[in-house]
Parts: sequence; C-alpha cells; structure tokens
Amino acid sequence: MSESVLKNHINSYLPLSEEELSEIISYFEYHTYKKKEILILTGKRCNKLFFVSKGCLHLYFIDDLGYKKTTQFAMENWWLTDFLAFQNQKESNFSIESIENSEVLSISFSKYNELLNTFPSLEKYFRNIYETAYGAALMRLKYINSYSKEEMYFRFQEEFPEFVQRVPQYLLASFLGLTPEYLSEIKKNRFS
Amino acid sequence: MSESVLKNHINSYLPLSEEELSEIISYFEYHTYKKKEILILTGKRCNKLFFVSKGCLHLYFIDDLGYKKTTQFAMENWWLTDFLAFQNQKESNFSIESIENSEVLSISFSKYNELLNTFPSLEKYFRNIYETAYGAALMRLKYINSYSKEEMYFRFQEEFPEFVQRVPQYLLASFLGLTPEYLSEIKKNRFS
Repeated sequence: MSESVLKNHINSYLPLSEEELSEIISYFEYHTYKKKEILILTGKRCNKLFFVSKGCLHLYFIDDLGYKKTTQFAMENWWLTDFLAFQNQKESNFSIESIENSEVLSISFSKYNELLNTFPSLEKYFRNIYETAYGAALMRLKYINSYSKEEMYFRFQEEFPEFVQRVPQYLLASFLGLTPEYLSEIKKNRFS
Repeated sequence: MSESVLKNHINSYLPLSEEELSEIISYFEYHTYKKKEILILTGKRCNKLFFVSKGCLHLYFIDDLGYKKTTQFAMENWWLTDFLAFQNQKESNFSIESIENSEVLSISFSKYNELLNTFPSLEKYFRNIYETAYGAALMRLKYINSYSKEEMYFRFQEEFPEFVQRVPQYLLASFLGLTPEYLSEIKKNRFS
C-alpha cells in the first residue's frame, strides 16, 4: 500500500514507467510505527528522510521547561526530516515522532544520493517538493508576524479543518506558539 | 560581473562547461536597482524569480498599521521570490524591494521552465538550493518558538554579525518581530 502511495505521488509530477517506479521504491525501507514511537532523536546523526504514506509524524524539540514543541507536521504524501542536518550528515536539531499509527518509507542519505544519481529525473520531483515547502514556510513566517496567536488558530482552523480535528491539541497549541490552556480557552470562548 | 557570480554559484554545485553556463545565463535579464526600488508588488502576478549578484533585497509585506515587515532578506548568491505565487502564477503575497544598490538577474516563469527543460541537470542545483532554504526556514521557526525576541536578536548578531551591520535596523527589527524602538533599547542596554 505504502509503495503505491509514493509511486502515485511521484507519478503526479513525473511520467515514469511502472518498472522505473518499482526500482525507485526498492531504495526505500518500509516501516510501521505505533503512535508515539521515536523515528529520530535530537542530537543523533540525522541519516534518514521519511515519506508518510499513512498516519502522521511531527518534527519537534523539547523546550527549557521540558515541553514538546512541534515545528512541522507531516501527514500523507509529506516528506520529513531535519533537512539541514540530513544534508550535512550532522546531529539532528529536532526529534521525529509518530503521533498516529503510521506507515512510512525511509531512505538513508547514501541511498538518497545513489537514487538521485541513478534516476536524475527525480531531481525535478524533489525540486518541486522543496520549492513548495519553502514557499509555504515563508507564508507561515508572514502569518506569525501578522496575526495574534488567537487569529493564527482561527485562520488555521478555517484553512485546515480536518488537520485541526486530527492532531493532538497540545501539539497543535505548541505548533501555533500557544499554551494548551490558552488554546482550550480560545476554543471555549469561540463556542460559548 | 553578475553573470560570473551566477556561473560560479551554479558551478559550485554542478560541473558544467563554459559554453553551457553561457547559454544558461542567456535565459536571464540583468538589472541594476537603486536602493528602495520595488521589484515586485503585493497583489500583482508574481512572474519573476531573482538571483542577487550584488547588494541586498528583501521580501516584505505591509501590516495593518502601514509598517513594512520583512519576511526574508536576500544577499549575494541568494534566490528570492514569493515561491508559492511564482509556482502557481498567482498574485504575490509579498513585495520585493532593494535595500541597497543592487545587481540582480531575473528570470520569468516561462523562461525558468524552458531553462529547466533544456538543462535538466539544473534541477539538481535548484533542488539543493530549496532543500537548504527549507531546512533553514524550519530552524528559524524553531528559534521563534524557543527564544525571546531579545535572545533572537543576540543569537542573530552572533551568527551573522556582518548581516546585522549591513541591513537597515528598522527592517532587522521587523524581521525579528520587534519594534524599532525596542531593538534600539536592547542595543542600548547591551552596550551601556
């Protein structure tokens, strides 16, 4: 199942034969993770790039008070890692954890480079993925600098209602820079 | 001069011949901008991607009170546009302005695609650029969620001292989410 999700995603950007797609998939490892399993730990060498075919992961760090703070979520068809650390084969600045039971394809840094050398047409696929992800990050930085945290929550809820339903509320709060208590206040006032 | 800056930058990622590099450059237009010229205006179709060979640009928006807020700076060897709007050929969510006298190479969306079709090896170059830019944006989002605005300024100053010297302080303040007055207070207290 996971394999066909990635094949379809690549195929939506690039016309490749079934044979090529199957060879591409052979560079990946398939994993299932239960909710709350750790895939990468802060401070360990970041040697994996993940594609989510089912479920949800998050990229997070632990703040000075010991709270998890989510920097990025990744649901179906998303790629996730600490990209700077992965690119430079350094220690990760983030941890990655499954927040639902998840199915994931992973690729090591050496396999990723081998894959891109063998199938250079995949450079186009990843160029598009990262171009969009970077553009979206700039929009997110704009929102952070434009809106109050309360407005951020309502905009987010309007734009991604399914997402807001799906992720644990204390992680959604940390993603928006709120305390869980404040998020719960906002929601209560909204519906009271 | 601008041409050789871009050629060298591409060559640091990809081994291409002088002939190929010259053909690549022919897809670009060369511009010089005086300080405070507008390159792209919010709300207009975003049809250009910019490479800075000299000087500095910034990607900004105007907030509700009429203040400019910088989301991204681009100095020598940086690429800049509203990537989501460029990719989808939509109205820009940002304006782009030169904050120094600048030399810039620009490419239109249709030329960009033509260039990538003619020189598919450039996909690797842009994949690397955007992979790094996205990774850096995730780190910036982590810092925003980790540090006070005051700490952000000192970390930024430590990591990019030349940059802090070079950009106008009211734009640096907006980039860090501070008021210019508060930034000036922080700096005064630091050195008093």
